[in-house]
Amino acid sequence: MTIDMYDQDLARRPANFASLTPLSFLERAACVHPDRVAVIHGSIQRTWSEVYKRCRRLASALARRGVQRGHTVAAMTANTPEMYEAHFGVPMCGAVLNAINTRLDAKTVAFILDHAQARVLLTDREFSGVVKDALAQCSRELLVVDIDDPNFDGGQRLGTLDYEALLAEGDPDYPWQPPVDEWDAISLNYTSGTTGNPKGVVYHHRGAHLNSLSNIVSNEMPLGSVYLWTLPMFHCNGWCYPWTLAALAGTSVCLRQVRAPVVLEAIATHRVNYLCGAPVVLSGLAQAAQELKPRFDHPVTVMTGGAAPPAAVIAAMHANGFRVRHVYGLTETYGPSVICEPQPDWRELGDDELADRMARQGVRSVGLEELMVADPETLKPVPADGQTMGEILMRGNVVMKGYLKNPRASEECFRGGWFHSGDLAVRHPDGYVQIRDRSKDIIISGGENISSIEVEGVLFRHPDVIDAAVVAAPHEKWGETPCAFVTLREGAQLTTEGVIAYCREHLAHFKAPTLVVFGPIAKTATGKVQKFKLRELAREAAK
Amino acid sequence: MTIDMYDQDLARRPANFASLTPLSFLERAACVHPDRVAVIHGSIQRTWSEVYKRCRRLASALARRGVQRGHTVAAMTANTPEMYEAHFGVPMCGAVLNAINTRLDAKTVAFILDHAQARVLLTDREFSGVVKDALAQCSRELLVVDIDDPNFDGGQRLGTLDYEALLAEGDPDYPWQPPVDEWDAISLNYTSGTTGNPKGVVYHHRGAHLNSLSNIVSNEMPLGSVYLWTLPMFHCNGWCYPWTLAALAGTSVCLRQVRAPVVLEAIATHRVNYLCGAPVVLSGLAQAAQELKPRFDHPVTVMTGGAAPPAAVIAAMHANGFRVRHVYGLTETYGPSVICEPQPDWRELGDDELADRMARQGVRSVGLEELMVADPETLKPVPADGQTMGEILMRGNVVMKGYLKNPRASEECFRGGWFHSGDLAVRHPDGYVQIRDRSKDIIISGGENISSIEVEGVLFRHPDVIDAAVVAAPHEKWGETPCAFVTLREGAQLTTEGVIAYCREHLAHFKAPTLVVFGPIAKTATGKVQKFKLRELAREAAK
Repeated sequence: MTIDMYDQDLARRPANFASLTPLSFLERAACVHPDRVAVIHGSIQRTWSEVYKRCRRLASALARRGVQRGHTVAAMTANTPEMYEAHFGVPMCGAVLNAINTRLDAKTVAFILDHAQARVLLTDREFSGVVKDALAQCSRELLVVDIDDPNFDGGQRLGTLDYEALLAEGDPDYPWQPPVDEWDAISLNYTSGTTGNPKGVVYHHRGAHLNSLSNIVSNEMPLGSVYLWTLPMFHCNGWCYPWTLAALAGTSVCLRQVRAPVVLEAIATHRVNYLCGAPVVLSGLAQAAQELKPRFDHPVTVMTGGAAPPAAVIAAMHANGFRVRHVYGLTETYGPSVICEPQPDWRELGDDELADRMARQGVRSVGLEELMVADPETLKPVPADGQTMGEILMRGNVVMKGYLKNPRASEECFRGGWFHSGDLAVRHPDGYVQIRDRSKDIIISGGENISSIEVEGVLFRHPDVIDAAVVAAPHEKWGETPCAFVTLREGAQLTTEGVIAYCREHLAHFKAPTLVVFGPIAKTATGKVQKFKLRELAREAAK
Repeated sequence: MTIDMYDQDLARRPANFASLTPLSFLERAACVHPDRVAVIHGSIQRTWSEVYKRCRRLASALARRGVQRGHTVAAMTANTPEMYEAHFGVPMCGAVLNAINTRLDAKTVAFILDHAQARVLLTDREFSGVVKDALAQCSRELLVVDIDDPNFDGGQRLGTLDYEALLAEGDPDYPWQPPVDEWDAISLNYTSGTTGNPKGVVYHHRGAHLNSLSNIVSNEMPLGSVYLWTLPMFHCNGWCYPWTLAALAGTSVCLRQVRAPVVLEAIATHRVNYLCGAPVVLSGLAQAAQELKPRFDHPVTVMTGGAAPPAAVIAAMHANGFRVRHVYGLTETYGPSVICEPQPDWRELGDDELADRMARQGVRSVGLEELMVADPETLKPVPADGQTMGEILMRGNVVMKGYLKNPRASEECFRGGWFHSGDLAVRHPDGYVQIRDRSKDIIISGGENISSIEVEGVLFRHPDVIDAAVVAAPHEKWGETPCAFVTLREGAQLTTEGVIAYCREHLAHFKAPTLVVFGPIAKTATGKVQKFKLRELAREAAK
């Protein structure tokens, strides 16, 4: 075969090829908007010029202490300016940022530090109790650096130096370089599995760059957006928003604790126009907004994910002037990679109908190349009938590199050339995808599939129910039967019979629970229901 | 060296790596917004679903006729739906789109068809005169396909079949594939040099994808934007906007001829919110808006480039409710890659001061990795003093692959690892870049550099001047001296002495022209002043 003329003498060169990396956004923000405020935290305000210098100092100081390409720098901290800077300063010296979930127990943190082969740990006094124990259990010698946040009292310093002293060691003009290969790792995020050891999800510079831009397109974010940190930065690197904000030369308003009145105050004071949070954050916000009547009149968009936002929450948010965007993704997809993109004709829908549409996970973002609901073995897509269940499968540039030191898990989740989300869903006639269940949470009763999410949805609509979860209990005749775990509002008098009757009224009868357990529901550190524990309890209840 | 754990078992796979290509935007638009209008042209309206099918038909029909990867498909047409579709359909079969400037002469078109080794030509009746001659002069056997636009009367059909017949040969479900390598060519755009043969600038899928997204970020374009085609699609592929519109699932309003009243009408009828055009388009628009008082009240953003927008034009546009964005780039940089990003404090500036800031070319877009003004030989950046001139040098992912079959020209423009723009500029203290001249247009008088653009700027401010250009004329004592070419408003009485006196009043005296020639100014097909012709005339005038 002859060489194509379009390949002849037209190879990549330094002039026309650069590794994609979100680090380039920081350099640009500092150059174009040096005096614009980049980060706000209590009384601390720093400009893009200052943040860029501090990030270069951090990279330089880490490099001087021997940290280099492929090394891991861990951080266990609230949404502080230091955590924001670590998203740039750590990869600027070639290293990989491992942001640790601050709600984890010491044993798990120790496991992570060992597994990630962390060399440095940035730690926040607020979590010194757990971190101290974790360091005692961990087998590594780490450089421990304290984040000594003036906005937090309490806890103790554990390190050999504090963050500011580390920065002082570094050069503010450090000549950082983009990664040689855009496939190089930029961060490591451990998934909080409900069982077993957490798996380390590796992100690369290319995906982080592309998902940062995708956030802008999906949520129509203007230049200079002001973003409030209600979503933890340890959660999929804050859905890539630290980097998105740099691309927009926007402002990050940090927040140590997410309390609705403080959030509303911050929105008003700093004219915040974007924030992210789980539906539970939204419902708190909507309620507080109703009570406090906050003093802001500018549009605020809230991106929500982790679970579908309930109808009542959407209606309450809209009533209080918020614009809600439902997004979906997994740690493995850099956070949101599927968006419930609103259709123009949704404007004409009533509250309930709109909530119904917005409860769908949606369609692929511009950052994700392919999304389908299919049989996970044959890869045959399900019909778009809103009924047939299949697994959500994804492929594209915002799918992780894989699991660190876990080729078996990587092979398993990437089988057939697609990333297997583990979420079971239907595809509606309009192409929008809606989750029905986690694949391992499906209940099979008399050969019929029952979506635990569907049953939970009904339970949540009961006025006396404040929390609910449904799992399979063994059943002699049907194989499995739904067992409902229900937390009641204080003073409510709902009985087992009442719960079952309510479900039979609103569901196909075979989907109604036959067993009900009242009380609080076991959750993981990230707030996920521990269904494996509930299954044990359900087995007991079925005896 | 041991293998880094972040490289171990974490290679690219189909699940997590996809070639970047703007074609993925089309598939997404058709899937997410199948019924939204994608293209409007007169009474023709087509949805994203229809356009996607037509593009697949085009790709399929071309493939069936033997067109494949690395082949060239040329198009010489106004801004029609067919041209829009060609931006997707041609690369969907692996081929490269060569959109030809419709203002070129037959000889140049023939040169391009030969040089590009075009196999197919899509041609528009409007240009059948030139195309017929070009085909006679060209040495290739081409498949000539007529675009038989019902919105145009006249010209003749030249081909063996028309575009709709070609589509009818194709499969609307053609299983197109993204390019195997994102570095594969997607389009070929010939630069209209003022001398010599045009050079073929090759774009790749990666750059087209990234610049499409960069347009969205830079201009804060919302989903579903409505875009009016006042900029020719043959011009740097319409600055990548055909692809940008697909990423937003927006609407393209086609336009065969750019006349201000028609533009205003289209803005009102279709609620257009974005358009691009040279400053001359803007001045026509501002004037017409003043006279016609058009009936629209929504915000409209106009991206302008090719030359700095004059103060009066910016003020008039703002007064008529348009938002102006000045962008800069070259064919070699996929169109706009530098943007005059507004600073918040510019809102407080008066008209003249604002125009002064907005006349600057600006800063790199998020799509361009590096931009500097430097000595083109030593690559040493000039100080940001607003005074010292250097060449604009760029590098990054939105710089072309190179010139087709012209390695010498590629080496020359890429020397030192940077793309050399040929534009001489200063860098202001705020980091914004401002062009002073094309490097070959600088006038050196008594050892002092004179920017022809600066002198032209003064001439344009004179109320009697409607067009102006300045070039070097030989001068016995000073080496060179500025010679002004001036077109006067009808009825104006300005004399040579008047022009010189006005310039001396507003410029350092050594910069004032000593020779003035009145009359129309020679332009190229793309409206660029033919300075080489003016230089000949200036030599005559100096005798």
